Amino acid sequence: MIADGIAHEACVRPSPGAGTALRPVGAADVTVHGGFWGDRLRINRERTIPHGFDRLRATGTLNNLQLAAGAGHTGTYRASGDTSGAVLPFLDSDVYKWLEAVGWELGRDDDAGLRAAADEAIGIVARAQRQDGYLNSFVTVLGGRQYADLAWGHELYCLGHLVQAAVAWHRALGDDRLLDIALRAVAHADRALGPSGADGIDGHPEIEMALVELTRVTGDESHLAFAARMLDLRGHGIIGEGRFGSTYWQDHLPVREAAEVAGHSVRQLYLDCGAVDVAVERDDKDLLGAVRRRWDDMVRTRRYLTGSVGSRHRDEAFGDPYELPPDRAYAETCASIAEVMLGWRLLLATGESRYADDIERVMFNGVLPSLSRSGTEFFYVNPLQRRTHRSSDTAGDGRRAPWQACACCPPNLMRMLSTWEQYVLTGDGTGVQVHQYADASFRVSDMELTIATGYPWDGTIVVTVVRTPDRPWALSLRVPGWCRSATLTVGDGPAEAVTAGYATRSRTWRAGDRVVLDLELPVRLIEPHPRVDAVRGCVAFERGPIVYCIESADLANGVPLEDVRYDSDGAVAATPRPDLGDGVVGIDVPAAVAGSRMTVPAIPYHTWGNRGDGGMRVWLPREALSADRA
Amino acid sequence: MIADGIAHEACVRPSPGAGTALRPVGAADVTVHGGFWGDRLRINRERTIPHGFDRLRATGTLNNLQLAAGAGHTGTYRASGDTSGAVLPFLDSDVYKWLEAVGWELGRDDDAGLRAAADEAIGIVARAQRQDGYLNSFVTVLGGRQYADLAWGHELYCLGHLVQAAVAWHRALGDDRLLDIALRAVAHADRALGPSGADGIDGHPEIEMALVELTRVTGDESHLAFAARMLDLRGHGIIGEGRFGSTYWQDHLPVREAAEVAGHSVRQLYLDCGAVDVAVERDDKDLLGAVRRRWDDMVRTRRYLTGSVGSRHRDEAFGDPYELPPDRAYAETCASIAEVMLGWRLLLATGESRYADDIERVMFNGVLPSLSRSGTEFFYVNPLQRRTHRSSDTAGDGRRAPWQACACCPPNLMRMLSTWEQYVLTGDGTGVQVHQYADASFRVSDMELTIATGYPWDGTIVVTVVRTPDRPWALSLRVPGWCRSATLTVGDGPAEAVTAGYATRSRTWRAGDRVVLDLELPVRLIEPHPRVDAVRGCVAFERGPIVYCIESADLANGVPLEDVRYDSDGAVAATPRPDLGDGVVGIDVPAAVAGSRMTVPAIPYHTWGNRGDGGMRVWLPREALSADRA
Repeated sequence: MIADGIAHEACVRPSPGAGTALRPVGAADVTVHGGFWGDRLRINRERTIPHGFDRLRATGTLNNLQLAAGAGHTGTYRASGDTSGAVLPFLDSDVYKWLEAVGWELGRDDDAGLRAAADEAIGIVARAQRQDGYLNSFVTVLGGRQYADLAWGHELYCLGHLVQAAVAWHRALGDDRLLDIALRAVAHADRALGPSGADGIDGHPEIEMALVELTRVTGDESHLAFAARMLDLRGHGIIGEGRFGSTYWQDHLPVREAAEVAGHSVRQLYLDCGAVDVAVERDDKDLLGAVRRRWDDMVRTRRYLTGSVGSRHRDEAFGDPYELPPDRAYAETCASIAEVMLGWRLLLATGESRYADDIERVMFNGVLPSLSRSGTEFFYVNPLQRRTHRSSDTAGDGRRAPWQACACCPPNLMRMLSTWEQYVLTGDGTGVQVHQYADASFRVSDMELTIATGYPWDGTIVVTVVRTPDRPWALSLRVPGWCRSATLTVGDGPAEAVTAGYATRSRTWRAGDRVVLDLELPVRLIEPHPRVDAVRGCVAFERGPIVYCIESADLANGVPLEDVRYDSDGAVAATPRPDLGDGVVGIDVPAAVAGSRMTVPAIPYHTWGNRGDGGMRVWLPREALSADRA
Repeated sequence: MIADGIAHEACVRPSPGAGTALRPVGAADVTVHGGFWGDRLRINRERTIPHGFDRLRATGTLNNLQLAAGAGHTGTYRASGDTSGAVLPFLDSDVYKWLEAVGWELGRDDDAGLRAAADEAIGIVARAQRQDGYLNSFVTVLGGRQYADLAWGHELYCLGHLVQAAVAWHRALGDDRLLDIALRAVAHADRALGPSGADGIDGHPEIEMALVELTRVTGDESHLAFAARMLDLRGHGIIGEGRFGSTYWQDHLPVREAAEVAGHSVRQLYLDCGAVDVAVERDDKDLLGAVRRRWDDMVRTRRYLTGSVGSRHRDEAFGDPYELPPDRAYAETCASIAEVMLGWRLLLATGESRYADDIERVMFNGVLPSLSRSGTEFFYVNPLQRRTHRSSDTAGDGRRAPWQACACCPPNLMRMLSTWEQYVLTGDGTGVQVHQYADASFRVSDMELTIATGYPWDGTIVVTVVRTPDRPWALSLRVPGWCRSATLTVGDGPAEAVTAGYATRSRTWRAGDRVVLDLELPVRLIEPHPRVDAVRGCVAFERGPIVYCIESADLANGVPLEDVRYDSDGAVAATPRPDLGDGVVGIDVPAAVAGSRMTVPAIPYHTWGNRGDGGMRVWLPREALSADRA
């Protein structure tokens, strides 16, 4: 065995006997220390997470839990995010997601400010818990009945987020204050709805994956059984139709039977995360196979170029197959995060590179665009087109805000970025598999690797073996599916062509050994699937893992974005865009506007929306069309 | 003066001194007796309206008013249409719209069944009114405060519909039972919110146009003043933002200032109906001009080919300019009806044929498609595309239902069809203007005309003068804007070419004179505006006023609708489709499917959805695109 010292103390940690192809490394074993991702992780830690605490306080979300704690606290319970009276019973979960992020951050490195804020929040959560273990401010303060409104109440959803925060604090810090709270709250829920309780499932899946992780932490199989029970109960219509039909809350078909992703996209993806977790713990290949089939369906028929999913605003749903409007894309930030969480579980389960490819696509183009350059403003929806002239910008129409009335996305983004290091590589007895490229190091007792790269702007990735056990092991580097030409060079050896998948080299490595993966990064012209009606006759531009867009901020004064056409007679070319960040590469797109030829700049989609309120589009109509029209 | 006997007792009847270019004729003066529209009106009277009464009873809507009447009535108040708990405070209005339809129907011809049902409903409404005149079952039964929730409560909206029903019964039947009720209810509202009351406007405009009509009935200017006051109060943010922003309820900009249609489409169009009514009564050219500008904006940038409007499901809103997705078109039936109502007011005000053109387009292709061939099932939304394979059909996704939880559309359709005869022609001292073509007669004391036509399937319209005063008067026949070639023949004279607009012939007519308008009806290929991203690279087909679509029910087994391409090398041809109704004309469309050439039938859009649950599309991709792609 190599890498004996791997802690495996990650956000997802299959049991040693679980049927997974890969094993995660521990959060403490890998460090992203610079470059593209280093910047993002630093901004998250230094700006986004502190901003989150401010907002949890300012909006009353934290005060809701204080009101549940009773004695001495004042203020009005905030059950609604705006003046419409829409009831939001799930706000506690924002505190838990924020605490989860802080747990992982403090595990990376201490920070007095974050620690003080977290201690305050944990204290409030502890006091909000009732004597019998029940913990939910909405029900406690407003006097509702426990577990009476499983469809909309989000009680188990909130509990799941509490458990995930508790697991983070346990694994990253060995701090079990939240775990004690969570275990008592789960015991309360288990008495009510577990195997000896009533049949019930939450309208919003989430608790399932949290319960599996709780078994992984505690060894107590009852949590896994509770999760499996809820998976089995789902899909038999026990929640009812509601306003959006049973599909909305994943109660339309049994988890093992549904062949397609459907309904509310975050609900579908969280449910499938829990299903994979149960499947690998129980070596349940049927259940795993059902999730994989749905994932295939999603990627084939219902995923945006940016990796995002969710085509409908009305019910935050996956639309029908190939229903992918760029302007009215819902593409919720939380759905992209859920997709990364699911992709990771499927990658661990199967070892197939396509899941890592998907994680890459959705992180760069589905998750990151939600955050402003400042780190303190957030997109809830992430459209692929915004018209220059609009007459009705309202919440949810694709503008970043410091917070949302329904603020599920910002703290979800925080915990995603705080755990991102864990997604970079895996390691086990056979070797190390590098899935995502960043300036990073991997250090455990008997080995140390460094990864140096200018990725995603540059395609050269250098892996250096700093320490190694004196035994053979395999180094696997992912060659992304989008890459048409790549070479791998080991030491002074020849550059060997490698193709999409994992390029693996096995040997008895020596300290100082270098492996260089060179990925060619030409600008790629993307044609839409012919069944995607909404972008027929358009092209998009990619380079490496990055999806590009045209923003009106880059157009000469008076050139309407809506009149720009791609001129296929010209040539695209990469070009530096230091104004958008260190190392950023843009694209010069040959274009025609009302018959005049010009060059139009395309920028990485994740950088859009930071320069005013103009238009943007990922898909650009081809000029040929206009000609054809004449 | 000719046509002295015109009653003008129509649903919209500008005061004699109002500044309108045209004057409506009375409901009793015109009869549609056969042909295309005769069938529709008969189905509405014989099937749809009786079905409506059944549903008002079965769903509890009528019982709501019985509960408000108190003593002796039982049952639960129905405040919510489904299990989601969404509150629907406006259900009373469905009873009023149904009563309005019955009023006009009984004016056309008595019917014992309809009369008995209406008497029952009127009795219930009368008993539901409180002593002080207030009448709203939602507030009365559930114990709410009057006029306390103007944003969502719909109290004035319901009152407006009551007034319109009362006006119908007064004008069509001289029956003032409802008028007495309505006047007392309006007096109550006027005390609370009129010039000497609090400042308040309803979140859903509707009452404005009703109040103007009430002044026209009673001569009491206070109702007009109340309407004008509410128009002036609107647009200053007094309702607040709410969930969808102040645009949603037309409170974002003053009525005189808003340059574009915006927000909830029915709210915008009902508001503009009231604005035109106030404008013509007060000869307020600024106000009329503001509505005309918005109408121009709507037709230029935000109207579907079918005449429908409303691109967003989430907030039932006009989208941004050129945001016109065919699959997710909202295109609410009520918005199409509201567009006819507004177009009619603008036509009367200006005499411009384009408003009659729009009424034609939206009646054939926006309003009629909502009704099933059986007359008892209704679309709420009217998409221009439904995919063959779907995974999430839920309410509002474009399937006809016998009724909806929120059932605003079905009774609105009933009153629209019950008043349709009134939209056929206008008449005044100068002559008669025929705007819509149907088998119809116009009879007043000193003149009688008959119109005979196979329209819309056939383009020949024969107007015969049966009786006429012995003085010159002008006969104007609308040449639709879509028509590229038309002739007019008077008696034995030559066929003279006429162009879009009104073809007018003035003379001293004699009994037996015949005027023949011949409209050529070639199949027309329609290209989308280049800014409409959602249907780029597609074509649509029209013939006469009819928009066509391809339905998968017409495709050979195994041919996927989504793979059909228009083959521009072939020729389109009209073809009889008796299977879809008497005289119906379909189109043979040259097509290519996966490289094979074939002919694919297109059917009138208003006939779709009556042959199973398959796919449909109005816009068909051009084959050229696929070639371009290769």
